[in-house]
Amino acid sequence: MKLVVTGTIGIDTVHTPRGTRAEVSGGSAAYFAAAASKLCPVRVVAAVGGDWPAEHRAILAALPGVCLAGLETRQNSRTFAWGGRYFEDVNRRETLFTEVGVLQEAPPIVPLSYQDSELIFLGNTHPAVQLGFIEQFPLRKLVVADTMDLWIRTAHGELSDLLRRVDGLIINDSEAGELTGFRNAITAGRKILELGPSFVVVKKGEHGAILIHNDGMAVVPAFPVDEVHVVDPTGAGDSFAGGFMGCLARLRRSDFAALQSAMGYGTVVASFALESFGLDRMRTLSTAEVESRLAHFQTLARVG
Amino acid sequence: MKLVVTGTIGIDTVHTPRGTRAEVSGGSAAYFAAAASKLCPVRVVAAVGGDWPAEHRAILAALPGVCLAGLETRQNSRTFAWGGRYFEDVNRRETLFTEVGVLQEAPPIVPLSYQDSELIFLGNTHPAVQLGFIEQFPLRKLVVADTMDLWIRTAHGELSDLLRRVDGLIINDSEAGELTGFRNAITAGRKILELGPSFVVVKKGEHGAILIHNDGMAVVPAFPVDEVHVVDPTGAGDSFAGGFMGCLARLRRSDFAALQSAMGYGTVVASFALESFGLDRMRTLSTAEVESRLAHFQTLARVG
Repeated sequence: MKLVVTGTIGIDTVHTPRGTRAEVSGGSAAYFAAAASKLCPVRVVAAVGGDWPAEHRAILAALPGVCLAGLETRQNSRTFAWGGRYFEDVNRRETLFTEVGVLQEAPPIVPLSYQDSELIFLGNTHPAVQLGFIEQFPLRKLVVADTMDLWIRTAHGELSDLLRRVDGLIINDSEAGELTGFRNAITAGRKILELGPSFVVVKKGEHGAILIHNDGMAVVPAFPVDEVHVVDPTGAGDSFAGGFMGCLARLRRSDFAALQSAMGYGTVVASFALESFGLDRMRTLSTAEVESRLAHFQTLARVG
Repeated sequence: MKLVVTGTIGIDTVHTPRGTRAEVSGGSAAYFAAAASKLCPVRVVAAVGGDWPAEHRAILAALPGVCLAGLETRQNSRTFAWGGRYFEDVNRRETLFTEVGVLQEAPPIVPLSYQDSELIFLGNTHPAVQLGFIEQFPLRKLVVADTMDLWIRTAHGELSDLLRRVDGLIINDSEAGELTGFRNAITAGRKILELGPSFVVVKKGEHGAILIHNDGMAVVPAFPVDEVHVVDPTGAGDSFAGGFMGCLARLRRSDFAALQSAMGYGTVVASFALESFGLDRMRTLSTAEVESRLAHFQTLARVG
C-alpha cells in the first residue's frame, strides 16, 4: 500500500547526556520517512526554507524509497528549527528554542502524483492543517495522526473534529492523559476510542507502548537499550510511527493482527533511531538489521 | 522444589484512589506466600505479636499449600503495622505510619522441618538478618532477596555482603537506581550483577519488569489493567516475587529459560493482587485463573 507522511522537516540542535550536536537533520516527517523507508517506499509532504542545508537534503534523498516530490522549498522562508536539552532521565526534556519559520505559512500542497496514497500519516501540526490534508488523499484507506499537548490545550475543537475523521492516533502517555483526564494509559486509550479513532497507540518511551483497538489490546515493552547507547532520543516517537506504518504498508493490511505486528516493528526501528544524533544511524540501517533485531526482540520479550 | 519465604506479616491501613481499608492482612511474607501458593506449596518464616487478628491467621491458614509452622506468635509483642496513601499515580505512595513491633526484636527461628528448603526468598528486612537466614537453609539451591532504599542508605556494608551471597535480587527500578547510581534499568541491572548475583529482576510497576542475567535478558510489560481495577497496589511487588519463585519451584529449574517463564507468572499473579484490598482477591484466586490470564497475556504481549 502506498504510504505518505505529512509533517515537519527541521534543523535540530540537541543536548543530551551523551553530547551536543548543532543543526542536525530533524523534524517529524524526516524521522518518520527514514524509519518507514526500511520497510517500504514512503512519500513526504513538507516545506523547508531557503536555508535548508544541502547536506540535509542529501541525507533524505539518499535513503532508498523516500520520495521528496512533495517537499516544497520556499527560498524566502526559513526552515523550522528546534533546540532542546534532555535530562539524565531521557524521558524528560526541555525546549530551548523554537523558530517556526515555514510552519507559520500556508501548509504544503499535496502533489497530484500523491493522490493515490492509501496509508496516510499526519505528523504533528495544528489539527486544522491535518484535517486539510485528509481531503487531499481521495484514495485513503487508513489515516493515522499524531498530536501534541499544545493542540490539546489551544485547539481542542479542531482536534475533536480531527479525531472523528481519523482511523488511528499515535500519542505519548502524558498527552493521552492530558487529552482524556486519565493518567492510566489503558483507561486513557479506551476514552480516546470514544472520541472517534478505531485504535490508539499510547507510547511510553523507554517503557514501551500499548495498542488499544476496538478489537483488542496489545502491549510491548521497549527494546532494552543500555544507557550509553541512548545517544539522542529526538525523533524516537516519529521513528516508531514510521516503523509502525511501514509495517502496515508492507503487509497491505490494517486489521488487529497487522497492527500488533506493527507495534514490534515500530519499537525496533525506534531503538535504532536513538543510537545516534539526528538521522546518522538511519542512514546506514539496513532492513536486514531491522529484521535481525526484531527476531532478537521476540526472544527477549517472549512471555513464558 | 521446596520453597520458603522469610519476611514480614503485617497489619496494613491503606488509602488509595479507590477507597480506604483499615487493618487488613499484609506484609511481604503474606503477599508472597499467597501468590506462590497458587503454583506450589510454600513455607513461611515470620513473627507476629499477640495482637495479630485471628481473622488474618485464618486467611493464610485457609490458603492451600501455605505452611505456617515457621510463624512465631509472640504474645507480649505487637505485630508490624503500616499505613500508607497512594496517589492518583499509583506508582507513588507516602507512608503515614510504621509501627515496627516484633521487627525490632530477634528474627524468627527457622524450624528444623524447614531445613530441607531449596528455594529461598528473603523478603525485605535488614540485610544482616537476611544473611542470618541463609545459613539456616543448608540444602539451599537458589537464594533470591528483596531489599529497599532504607538499607541501601543505612546498611550498605551488610547489603554488599548479602549481594555476594545470593543468586538473585528482585528490586524495584528506583531502588536499582539508588543502589548503582544509574537510572536506566538495564544499566543498573548490569551493575548489580557485578555486585554478586547471577540475575536481577528490576520491577517497574505498571511498566513491567526486566530480567538481567549472566546468560541473557528478558523484558515483560505489565499485564494491562484499567484504572478502576487498580484497587490497592500494596503487595504487588511481593506477589510478583511469589509468582516468580512459585513458577521456579513448580518447574524445578532455575536456568535462564525457567527465569523467563517465571517473569510471566510473576506479572500475572501481581495483576490479580492489586484488584482488591489486602489479600481479598488472593483468597479466591484459583490456579486455573492464573493459567487463563497467562494465556491471555501471551496473546496481548506477542511481538509480531
